Amino acid sequence: MGALTPPVVILARPQLGENIGAAARAMKNCGLTDLRLVDPRDGWPNLAALPMAAAGKDIIESAKVYKTLGDALHDVTFLVATSARPRDMAKPVSDPRSVAPLLVGHHEQFTDSGRYAGLLFGAERSGLDNDELALADIIVQADLNPEATSLNLAQAVFLMAWEWRVAALHHIAAAKPAETVSSKTMSPKMPTDSEIIPATGSARDFFFTRLEKILDERHFFGSPEMAPVVKRNLRTYFTRGTPTEQELNTLHGILTLFEQGKGLG
Amino acid sequence: MGALTPPVVILARPQLGENIGAAARAMKNCGLTDLRLVDPRDGWPNLAALPMAAAGKDIIESAKVYKTLGDALHDVTFLVATSARPRDMAKPVSDPRSVAPLLVGHHEQFTDSGRYAGLLFGAERSGLDNDELALADIIVQADLNPEATSLNLAQAVFLMAWEWRVAALHHIAAAKPAETVSSKTMSPKMPTDSEIIPATGSARDFFFTRLEKILDERHFFGSPEMAPVVKRNLRTYFTRGTPTEQELNTLHGILTLFEQGKGLG
Repeated sequence: MGALTPPVVILARPQLGENIGAAARAMKNCGLTDLRLVDPRDGWPNLAALPMAAAGKDIIESAKVYKTLGDALHDVTFLVATSARPRDMAKPVSDPRSVAPLLVGHHEQFTDSGRYAGLLFGAERSGLDNDELALADIIVQADLNPEATSLNLAQAVFLMAWEWRVAALHHIAAAKPAETVSSKTMSPKMPTDSEIIPATGSARDFFFTRLEKILDERHFFGSPEMAPVVKRNLRTYFTRGTPTEQELNTLHGILTLFEQGKGLG
Repeated sequence: MGALTPPVVILARPQLGENIGAAARAMKNCGLTDLRLVDPRDGWPNLAALPMAAAGKDIIESAKVYKTLGDALHDVTFLVATSARPRDMAKPVSDPRSVAPLLVGHHEQFTDSGRYAGLLFGAERSGLDNDELALADIIVQADLNPEATSLNLAQAVFLMAWEWRVAALHHIAAAKPAETVSSKTMSPKMPTDSEIIPATGSARDFFFTRLEKILDERHFFGSPEMAPVVKRNLRTYFTRGTPTEQELNTLHGILTLFEQGKGLG
């Protein structure tokens, strides 16, 4: 992730160790590292966390526990709180995609001085209470299906971590010379594996011509009027797949078999 | 979600009922509804799925089970496969954010005719195998932490569902003032003529199976070790061109001629 320090993740009053573990895995997937637990219901360490953490084992092992949210925020200077329910609070409300560049921007400015952005998540059932929300700079609500706005804890963590990651990668790419950016934003793209060599236009034409000759000899095209149309359609289809050299070789092998079949007659 | 039909979700050989349930919850959060299971390890229904599904209970209850991936794709004409590991496959590779508008664009064009886009996810441990990947139009890889690229199944489903949802909401918002946002410009390979109907995944699978049988009978594949590799390469190439119904019909015509040629011998 280059020089960009990820936001810290703060779980307020988390309940199940499994959920804490799954949250750590989601953090690890997206390159976040700093997990803080405020007053976890079942104490800490929690044996149920590790199996769910998968590659995020190190995040569980280095997680810090705090008695109060205030303590957990000792070095957090920009706090984003997630909430499924709208509150009557005089606070800015944003969505995950819009807030991600703000997290990146904060780090650009402040991380060197030991000030971090933080993502705050509430307890599984109840979410964040009003006192916790009051500490946040921004409240984030994802525009989810109105029939099912409640994410499980690990999904909520993953959603914010993913949005941060994409914004951070974009930020890093944008800071590089234009040349290197373009290949990243270009998509969909073919694999760049050097063994995959696209066939030349000549090689394609040679294949088409051979295919058409074989089909002509077997009266495949029906009427003379239809022949050019069907040939063009075949060329269009076979070209659209952008055949590689190896693929054309395989197709030629099939044509040879085809010709031999006739030879038997 | 307005008039936009969401993509169907296909889980290939899923193992744990809990994961299927969590995937359904993630779908529900993002407004997806159609869940298809190919050869679930522990059979179906699976009692472990419902508790994890939360608000996605209805998705679990209406999930359909198929014996083969080909069957599950009977009405799917644009298939996006997720893979954590890069493969040496000559297929377009994209990322979740770039592919989401393609899913939206496909639906804009084709959903009224009962043709759907699909999101394909592999088994928990092993992911998608090469034969499954070969049926996809595009492979999606999320740019995750290189130290932890493996998402749990529900996270992977959530990631794709969320990216689809944001793209769909954006599309609807952009289309409101003037219905001018052309979905057709978003998807480079998609034919735009309304008479051009993409073939379903099942139809592709049927064609491949027939081609392979013909070639097998003529000992095309040489050694038994090489046969699966060559078959996969052929499937990959023929899929990459996103064949239309008419094109597959033409190719079937060629195969018929091929078979008759043998009959002459």
